[in-house]
Amino acid sequence: MTNSSDLSLGRRVMAMIEALAQHSDDPGRITRLYLSPAHRAAAETVLALMRDAGLDAHIDALGSVIGRMEGQAPDAPALIVGSHIDSVVDAGRYDGNLGVVLGIAVAQALRDGGAIPACPIEIVAFGDEENVRFPTNLSTSHALAGRFDPAWLDGRDQDGVTLREALIRFGGDPEGIAALARDPARYRGYLEVHIEQGPLLESRNLPVGIVSAINGITRARAHVTGEAGHAGTVPMAMRRDALAAVAEMIGIVERAGGTRTDTVATVGVAQVQPGAINVIPARVDFTLDARAPDDAVRNAMVQDIVTECETAAERRGVALTIEPFMDSPATPMEKGLMTVLEDAVASLGIEPLRLASGAGHDAVAMAHLCPAAMLFVRCKDGISHNPAESITLEDADMAAHVLIEAVRKLTAPV
Amino acid sequence: MTNSSDLSLGRRVMAMIEALAQHSDDPGRITRLYLSPAHRAAAETVLALMRDAGLDAHIDALGSVIGRMEGQAPDAPALIVGSHIDSVVDAGRYDGNLGVVLGIAVAQALRDGGAIPACPIEIVAFGDEENVRFPTNLSTSHALAGRFDPAWLDGRDQDGVTLREALIRFGGDPEGIAALARDPARYRGYLEVHIEQGPLLESRNLPVGIVSAINGITRARAHVTGEAGHAGTVPMAMRRDALAAVAEMIGIVERAGGTRTDTVATVGVAQVQPGAINVIPARVDFTLDARAPDDAVRNAMVQDIVTECETAAERRGVALTIEPFMDSPATPMEKGLMTVLEDAVASLGIEPLRLASGAGHDAVAMAHLCPAAMLFVRCKDGISHNPAESITLEDADMAAHVLIEAVRKLTAPV
Repeated sequence: MTNSSDLSLGRRVMAMIEALAQHSDDPGRITRLYLSPAHRAAAETVLALMRDAGLDAHIDALGSVIGRMEGQAPDAPALIVGSHIDSVVDAGRYDGNLGVVLGIAVAQALRDGGAIPACPIEIVAFGDEENVRFPTNLSTSHALAGRFDPAWLDGRDQDGVTLREALIRFGGDPEGIAALARDPARYRGYLEVHIEQGPLLESRNLPVGIVSAINGITRARAHVTGEAGHAGTVPMAMRRDALAAVAEMIGIVERAGGTRTDTVATVGVAQVQPGAINVIPARVDFTLDARAPDDAVRNAMVQDIVTECETAAERRGVALTIEPFMDSPATPMEKGLMTVLEDAVASLGIEPLRLASGAGHDAVAMAHLCPAAMLFVRCKDGISHNPAESITLEDADMAAHVLIEAVRKLTAPV
Repeated sequence: MTNSSDLSLGRRVMAMIEALAQHSDDPGRITRLYLSPAHRAAAETVLALMRDAGLDAHIDALGSVIGRMEGQAPDAPALIVGSHIDSVVDAGRYDGNLGVVLGIAVAQALRDGGAIPACPIEIVAFGDEENVRFPTNLSTSHALAGRFDPAWLDGRDQDGVTLREALIRFGGDPEGIAALARDPARYRGYLEVHIEQGPLLESRNLPVGIVSAINGITRARAHVTGEAGHAGTVPMAMRRDALAAVAEMIGIVERAGGTRTDTVATVGVAQVQPGAINVIPARVDFTLDARAPDDAVRNAMVQDIVTECETAAERRGVALTIEPFMDSPATPMEKGLMTVLEDAVASLGIEPLRLASGAGHDAVAMAHLCPAAMLFVRCKDGISHNPAESITLEDADMAAHVLIEAVRKLTAPV
């Protein structure tokens, strides 16, 4: 598993990552919400980088940056390489950005190599993947797939600003969204490189891996209502303690996630009322996030959780309501593109490991337009959505070489 | 279990309760923190009620209201009847106030009856029982027992005001606190009537009950530190989920409280960080409140909780710290006074049930001065520290008659 590269591609990638990391809405940390001033600045930087790489680039009606390299056959179905440049609050520098700058670096490397691809290549920097600011779901990539929901324009951020208003301030064009939809016949595939955001590659000592599927997600809000009481005076047998009930339910969720293969189930939020040391909790609101690469498995897991939690609530005399608000199906990656990525990985002397993606990505939306596949890059300790997010120069370079191999193969003359 | 009373004593008690309920620091609800303007106004009302009842009354250096009726032998050890008039935030109207106004009603009834007690009787309205505003512990009743801790004067409320500053604004006298300490030789006993704050009397269909002991309390703050991670990408087996760990610990606490007789154990606070639906919790801070009428039983219970939680933390790879900050011993009530109360209850046709007090009371401090005992009054649904706190006119009347019987017996000429 040696890499004979001089790391020049990796260095170029890291330099572009550094340039993008300068753009933040918050001083001292990286926060780059969709359509914010920092997003605009980052989009301008991407535009300049794309033009430096020889791409014909523009910022589209929703703020996505698109850079195109024409191929020998202008009408041949194009290959898209992309990811996103928006971020969560207090983010790391690689999530999303890595896939965008790798696309640019690969396009430039191909151009520098003098080869003209058989088909056009588009590099895309989406803007709304984290879905933090507005109640949207991958709106910018869904727009390319012709699935932008116009109701999203009326969604508001926490300051009450609608997406429509923010888009106009950004310099976008609400009227131009429908025209962003691409003709599926004109696209041969979508490739996205992204940090793993998990610890598997690190634990397997592998720099990259091939995504097999993007897990489906069920999300729900749950509320347990018991009865408040004095912590000193209500006998244990007469209590209807909402927190003790939810503690049992958290155990149910944990076991349900752990007993199946490749599933996860998480309670990330639990808010206790009234929340005083000497008061038996009256109410707890909590969340459920359950994921699996197979929808039937996920649905069975969620049904087990609901049934067992209801049984616990009944036994304890507390009221339980569970309100599902997301049921996002799994997105298997396209077999042909996966094989291309596997061959590219193997050609560089790396074991081509397949792994499921627990996180959602723009590839979920793009899979509605054309075949889609993803390459994951090892990240330190599996940490993401955090300033401690980190990858090595060597891994960035390796990912660039894998992507070059895959793009060459996919855009070679037939 | 009939009560031949015309309920006139109960009506007088309820009228005084209504008068005190008018004094609040918050509009629309009862909040009367120690040394607040509402506390001052309530103390003035108590002072006037005491004087109406013929008592020689004053407000002492710490804001407690003291009303004294001299006896035939001025130097005979006095009987104290009291409770408190401070409240929690958004309180009910009976907690504390009931014991104060019952004392006043009983003194007035004795005076109206023309009998002169053999020894002096003091009615006391303490001001700092809830210990909500300052980091104190029954400071006003401990002062009478000569156990006021001068460090309490430097404790601050959430606005940064020290107890000393608040006491001076209230009209009190920090320099006069030491002189509040009473000579134990001059006091024969302390009686306190209080709502039960629990559901036992109601479940037994009894208006009143005799307290056997005030439970000892252990309180601790605990912190579990695991590792944050993406809820979609970190496999269950690689997680160090702080909330899943605390959920297991809450189950340990609940079982420890429920397996022994008369013990309770409660987790009332659990705060999750970072607290996002898609992030594995990194840290949870929670509280423990464990009580028992027997200190050895309580200590064994707490030790079991600590040991089992440490085992769970080790197995899960999370860090656990438990910081005890209260270890308040149990206070058995004095047998002689209990018997007097039991006889009084039985003489009114009520089964004299003994029950432990899960909550702390001024009687804990007063037991350091002289023999102490308490009578509990049934409250609706066991609810306290809540606007829904409620007792019936009939039970208030019954409590007044029990207290009259007990006071007559204790202050009768020998």
